[in-house]
Amino acid sequence: MTWEAPMRTALQLAANGPATGVNPRVGCVLLDAEGNVLAEGWHRGVGTPHAEVDALGKLPEGAARGATAVVTLEPCNHWGHTGPCSVALIEAGVSRVVYATDDPGHHSGGGAERLREAGVEVVDGVLRDEVERFLGDWLTAARLGRPYIVVKWASSLDGRAAAADGTSRWITGAAARQRVHEQREASDAIVVGTGTVLADDPSLTARGDAGELLATQPTPVVIGTRAIPNDAAVFRHPNPVIFEGTHDLHAVMADLHQRGFRRAYVEGGPTLASAFVAAGLVDEYAVYLAPTLLGGPRLALGDIGVETIGDQRRLRIVDVERLGGDLLIRAVPVPAGAPRAADTDPADVAGADIFPETEEV
Amino acid sequence: MTWEAPMRTALQLAANGPATGVNPRVGCVLLDAEGNVLAEGWHRGVGTPHAEVDALGKLPEGAARGATAVVTLEPCNHWGHTGPCSVALIEAGVSRVVYATDDPGHHSGGGAERLREAGVEVVDGVLRDEVERFLGDWLTAARLGRPYIVVKWASSLDGRAAAADGTSRWITGAAARQRVHEQREASDAIVVGTGTVLADDPSLTARGDAGELLATQPTPVVIGTRAIPNDAAVFRHPNPVIFEGTHDLHAVMADLHQRGFRRAYVEGGPTLASAFVAAGLVDEYAVYLAPTLLGGPRLALGDIGVETIGDQRRLRIVDVERLGGDLLIRAVPVPAGAPRAADTDPADVAGADIFPETEEV
Repeated sequence: MTWEAPMRTALQLAANGPATGVNPRVGCVLLDAEGNVLAEGWHRGVGTPHAEVDALGKLPEGAARGATAVVTLEPCNHWGHTGPCSVALIEAGVSRVVYATDDPGHHSGGGAERLREAGVEVVDGVLRDEVERFLGDWLTAARLGRPYIVVKWASSLDGRAAAADGTSRWITGAAARQRVHEQREASDAIVVGTGTVLADDPSLTARGDAGELLATQPTPVVIGTRAIPNDAAVFRHPNPVIFEGTHDLHAVMADLHQRGFRRAYVEGGPTLASAFVAAGLVDEYAVYLAPTLLGGPRLALGDIGVETIGDQRRLRIVDVERLGGDLLIRAVPVPAGAPRAADTDPADVAGADIFPETEEV
Repeated sequence: MTWEAPMRTALQLAANGPATGVNPRVGCVLLDAEGNVLAEGWHRGVGTPHAEVDALGKLPEGAARGATAVVTLEPCNHWGHTGPCSVALIEAGVSRVVYATDDPGHHSGGGAERLREAGVEVVDGVLRDEVERFLGDWLTAARLGRPYIVVKWASSLDGRAAAADGTSRWITGAAARQRVHEQREASDAIVVGTGTVLADDPSLTARGDAGELLATQPTPVVIGTRAIPNDAAVFRHPNPVIFEGTHDLHAVMADLHQRGFRRAYVEGGPTLASAFVAAGLVDEYAVYLAPTLLGGPRLALGDIGVETIGDQRRLRIVDVERLGGDLLIRAVPVPAGAPRAADTDPADVAGADIFPETEEV
């Protein structure tokens, strides 16, 4: 039989889990020899059973003997809050494990090998692309040993963050600001520099339309060595502030990964954004463009170490959202040496067909 | 009867005319008393009959007596290359004239009044919005006594026109460059500064994919007082170059209008673009955004006279086109004091629904 249909079910189950946190969202379907569903499971976040164990737990002892487990991620092979899923599957007598993509974790990987050694048939790569897209941020973090980093800025159409005198209030509108709060909520950490805290005294919370706190709050991370006043708004954040007293961004990100943060949202103003770009520490750009022109010297992005056009930081735009009068352009870095999108057939470019209609001026 | 159906036909006829040139594109339908079409006409450009005369000329003498003329623009009232259309309609015995929008021309307006004085029934405002949108650039030029001005620039996502050392080759891709040539072809004049001619030696022609000249060529206009070398590429342009030896952009634009130019495409680099913005001489922005980051000091737009956020030049984005990997953002100025788009219901914002889907990263 083909495993795509149950894998798609497993992926839907995975999506029930939390989008943030140290663990990946995983789903599992247990099938009998005829392909009938015996049980389903998914992971609900750190400290709760993994998807495979969640599914196995719904069956009486012995009922999974000879079953096939279809699971979105390679079953883990380490002792954490729970025992290794590979062992649980072997002990339950599962005869076949089908999964989509390898677990890249240094500690957790190797489950497939252990299963094979125990005589379990292993099939991998089913719906790999879909699952990798779904788990993209978590997989990036696991592979690189640092959080998946989204760098956000807002600018006028001519690339300015503020007018010449520093005023910038309401460059973007309500819909764009609300989208920023959604992006904060989808992050484990929100990263700013001490300069931003001193200048703007931001609360760094994820809030709703009416200013209410959203269910999930990113942890505020403040980078830099300057002192912050005791009454700074960030100290009233529901999560305790993490101070990173160094300008070594690689070290900061390694520390955040160590602390269990998998998604960082960098919202710290032009200096910090430029430093992340210059360091090559960006997995995704979230550029809010306001339909206004400011001119002047206050740029949303400063020096990023590009001297000549050959050193440009090329991106690929993956998404353009219209938010009230504003745009959110989401882009990802293009590896150096890759063909530029415009040299390829437009139909090959991701998202090239998402603007079916235009409005005449 | 309702006049919308024949007016829509007249608008379709109008679209047969040339998109550039001193005269508007106009269509006309002659109907008998029962609403049957007697004849159709449209204007083919300066020196040829106006739409009304074109339609009347297709009928034998006397056949238009008692007819209704449905025409997209108020019949003209002046002697130019041809006699006034209002007089032609009166002499043909037309008993009713239906039109969409007034002719704002100082010389050509007043046709409706002359028709009424002659006892012809006049109905105006039928499909006014559609026709005004269709004739937008020409109407703007007629109302303001200067060409409709499109200011174009290309920049990186962070607002730079070039890398720090001035190199900028291939910031945008082939599809975006081709779109620029289409925009040039749709313009009567292409405007640059002497600095751009000296630095880049551009040909300022509208060319196709293979470098061939397109059918319609904008006239090159060079603003400034510096001398241009005799062998500059612009001297090989199929249209003779116009030199405007002044930095008074209002005077330049009045002169171009006087010469019959109705659509100007300003493509002259950061200094000239900034000067047009600062002077308030922009009807439409064409901003090509390349998915790349450059940092550094070479900005696509320089100082535009905005000191504080209250003086920002607010725009409304009317269209976003994906061109290979690049974006073309078209925007129009928002009058000072108008509510900002983001403060209104997104559904009220023009084009707010043109992005039905987004792609996940």
